Amino acid sequence: MMYGLYGKLTAYEGKRDELAAVLLEAAQSMEAVDHCFLYVVNVSETEPDAVFIYEVWRDQSAHQASLQLDSVKTLIQNGKPLIAGMERMSILNPIGGKGLSK
Amino acid sequence: MMYGLYGKLTAYEGKRDELAAVLLEAAQSMEAVDHCFLYVVNVSETEPDAVFIYEVWRDQSAHQASLQLDSVKTLIQNGKPLIAGMERMSILNPIGGKGLSK
Repeated sequence: MMYGLYGKLTAYEGKRDELAAVLLEAAQSMEAVDHCFLYVVNVSETEPDAVFIYEVWRDQSAHQASLQLDSVKTLIQNGKPLIAGMERMSILNPIGGKGLSK
Repeated sequence: MMYGLYGKLTAYEGKRDELAAVLLEAAQSMEAVDHCFLYVVNVSETEPDAVFIYEVWRDQSAHQASLQLDSVKTLIQNGKPLIAGMERMSILNPIGGKGLSK
């Protein structure tokens, strides 16, 4: 079963764009990770300090494994000083739709 | 600027799968809509009556225009009897990532 996450990262004041750049780098590194189907970085006018990530994985173990990748570990380190808060808004099972390569 | 939505539709008890099927049909009809980049249908073990949609559009006007399509109007009609509640959880501006064709 596919595994999806929708989460919110709140940046320290004035650090949202810097955090978004780190997460875009994370998304870039996912290009080489076959079992990551989607990793989309979003901002929001209604929450100017937040960065939202919508990600879809082949399954939960694929997501789990990605946390061990050096590239991901480095990005987590880079992001930490910018992050005031983290919220996992939804744990999902994507079942299909446009743009979801299975 | 790209326009994104993350929303939750709560089905009447026992109607989640039927609602999910209607939304998968909606996603199918988006295949022909160029300005719809993503339309992903999700369920969640933590919220068994809910269907979550993550969608990305070229911009807000493209999303607005889609609401006038006959296919979308029909699907909204089909979905209405199944929907106990609707919640727009985030209004987003996607800025990039894996799987987001621009």
